Amino acid sequence: MPGSAGAVETQYLDLPDPVRLDCGRDLYPVRVAYETYGVLSPGRDNVILVCHALSGDAHAAGTAPRSPGGAPDGTSTRDGFAADDRDGTAGKTLGWWDGMIGPGKAFDTDRYFVVSTNLLGGCRGTTGPSSVNPATRRPYGPDFPVITVADMVRTQRAFLDRLGITKLAAVAGGSLGGMQALEWAIAYPDQVEAIIPIASAHALQPQGVAWNAIAREAIMRDPDWQDGRYYGTGRAPESGLGIARMVGHVTYLSAPALADKFARRLQAAPDRPAGDGIRYTITEPEFQVESYLRHQAGTFVKRFDANTYLYLSRALTYFDLARSHGKGSLEQAVRSVKAKTLLISFSSDWLYPPAGSAEIARALGKAGLPVESHVIDAPYGHDCFLLEEARQIPIVRKFLEANQK
Amino acid sequence: MPGSAGAVETQYLDLPDPVRLDCGRDLYPVRVAYETYGVLSPGRDNVILVCHALSGDAHAAGTAPRSPGGAPDGTSTRDGFAADDRDGTAGKTLGWWDGMIGPGKAFDTDRYFVVSTNLLGGCRGTTGPSSVNPATRRPYGPDFPVITVADMVRTQRAFLDRLGITKLAAVAGGSLGGMQALEWAIAYPDQVEAIIPIASAHALQPQGVAWNAIAREAIMRDPDWQDGRYYGTGRAPESGLGIARMVGHVTYLSAPALADKFARRLQAAPDRPAGDGIRYTITEPEFQVESYLRHQAGTFVKRFDANTYLYLSRALTYFDLARSHGKGSLEQAVRSVKAKTLLISFSSDWLYPPAGSAEIARALGKAGLPVESHVIDAPYGHDCFLLEEARQIPIVRKFLEANQK
Repeated sequence: MPGSAGAVETQYLDLPDPVRLDCGRDLYPVRVAYETYGVLSPGRDNVILVCHALSGDAHAAGTAPRSPGGAPDGTSTRDGFAADDRDGTAGKTLGWWDGMIGPGKAFDTDRYFVVSTNLLGGCRGTTGPSSVNPATRRPYGPDFPVITVADMVRTQRAFLDRLGITKLAAVAGGSLGGMQALEWAIAYPDQVEAIIPIASAHALQPQGVAWNAIAREAIMRDPDWQDGRYYGTGRAPESGLGIARMVGHVTYLSAPALADKFARRLQAAPDRPAGDGIRYTITEPEFQVESYLRHQAGTFVKRFDANTYLYLSRALTYFDLARSHGKGSLEQAVRSVKAKTLLISFSSDWLYPPAGSAEIARALGKAGLPVESHVIDAPYGHDCFLLEEARQIPIVRKFLEANQK
Repeated sequence: MPGSAGAVETQYLDLPDPVRLDCGRDLYPVRVAYETYGVLSPGRDNVILVCHALSGDAHAAGTAPRSPGGAPDGTSTRDGFAADDRDGTAGKTLGWWDGMIGPGKAFDTDRYFVVSTNLLGGCRGTTGPSSVNPATRRPYGPDFPVITVADMVRTQRAFLDRLGITKLAAVAGGSLGGMQALEWAIAYPDQVEAIIPIASAHALQPQGVAWNAIAREAIMRDPDWQDGRYYGTGRAPESGLGIARMVGHVTYLSAPALADKFARRLQAAPDRPAGDGIRYTITEPEFQVESYLRHQAGTFVKRFDANTYLYLSRALTYFDLARSHGKGSLEQAVRSVKAKTLLISFSSDWLYPPAGSAEIARALGKAGLPVESHVIDAPYGHDCFLLEEARQIPIVRKFLEANQK
């Protein structure tokens, strides 16, 4: 019977050296927020790194106390961790991939030492645009360097060095997390035995680039964004960030899932006329789906930093393995890979469609590399990677077991 | 050889009586902006009404002088009519459905008298939220009543009465325009011989409701919206309206169409590093699709009123034939229809998907009513109804000819 990774607390580690970034700048200091689950083997050969997506954090599994929020260096001004859909009971919160990580689960903590970090550029403890810039002693804001997925991976590499971990049994993640797994396999081919990119892509499709552009525009057009220097002003671009989150939510779900969940039902309202009457209102939510979106926006802006959203969104639109590693050819980009690859995608995911994973599988196959690819038929769109654990678990377990032999 | 409807000019007509609205209010005065193409037959039996979509206007066909903008009552403060994709030469603009209306075209002006009006609630000459409220002598803004598609149709009915036109050979339109055609057939069964709803729906699907909610939120969260009372303040919610337009644009196109048009190409930029390098910028557009969206937003806000966007968006999300006319049953709702129906939808339209048109066809069929339904296989998404004229023309012409016999 699968169990829980138990009570955990996010920890913090300061990297000894600057991180060299793709843009040419060196970033220092860099702090990394992380959690671990399970026990490191004496041979240090049972490590799985899990990588989070745009709005995640280091708290991937188990239950954590609902923190007062922010990094211990006091730079983040975010509210308490009231994750949208994972509020636990009694002031505890469940990790974002709790269904996948724990004893007997996909990433089995009875066997593996699972490590999760908050991304470079994040707002949940790892250095990002809301952290203090040592040059000015004020938060970086727009002076934070523009980062890439490769920079995130380089930071994870330096962090694992500090933990004395050289080799990884696997790197796994969904969405932006899967991009990190792919980057790991190319950047450090001798240090990764397996990668598991789920609901991911070697490059975001143009429509996804467009959605991300709209989300960033919404934030930057909010006057409270103040060119990114809103920290300490008592105003933050919550309106714009809320719009960004609403756009995100609709792209994470499929149209049939929205229809199943809400149909065209009107929401309960005290002033609703008898029968199924409408209220003739422009400003108030009328349909349940309208009310849902407002709620999602409202909870998100309490826990997430708008500048981090901008930086991570930009990093994931820049990500393009063929361009960065293959002079335009995906096949050439993956040639240095040595890891075995497990790809999982979901039939109803239109943001990171199965066709994108198929392109990765084809490129790896042409390069003669071992790859296993699954398309899970499930209705919840991109969110499946967080929701469809029952069907992902046996696939991941079987893949990891085969790799151990 | 199909020709042009020629030089036209928008005209204006004041309705003699108040329009009774679904919300219970009477609206007076009501002015209607309209254009006509072709010649009214002595028997007044060759009239086709074409209805526009969310961002259209009365100028459906032919070439019009690029007007200084706004209604002749001086209430609209919009800039000149610089329609996004239909700037003509030498200061002329083509109508939004020019490919469909004219001598030898789908709506053949050698045979039919084609009438096009700007919708109730519009900002291109027909009374809407930017018009003067006689009670205050200032623009209505948020005091404008919340209107429905049925209210738009009631206004068109009163307008045609004033022109001495009782019966319509056909009502046609795409998207929100198709909703009006459907409403006409139910509200005035004895006065409509045929309807042609294209890329339309009997009720917007929940995902469409969500996109519209996001667009309206973006406008209303813009501080320059000022609770809708921005007229004359020197500020208008252009940031929010721009975001709304960007969301609209992506939903009007298909993902493959965006990929075909832009792929992941970077836009030309003077400071672009050699090769295919990225510029590491958060604030500037990097990809061509990002630049395109900004451009679309910029031109739209110059020609369209944000409050009109709110009101028309709300009307189209409310539209629900089963709820308003059938106590929840679409089949019951269409039972009073006497018109013949031609439905056209497009394979790649995910905002108004072919499945929605199929539901209308099924309901009409069950009620024993004549209906012809076509799904055109074309890649441009919802925009097909404006672009795929070559394939729509023979279908519409054949349908109208059969009806004449």
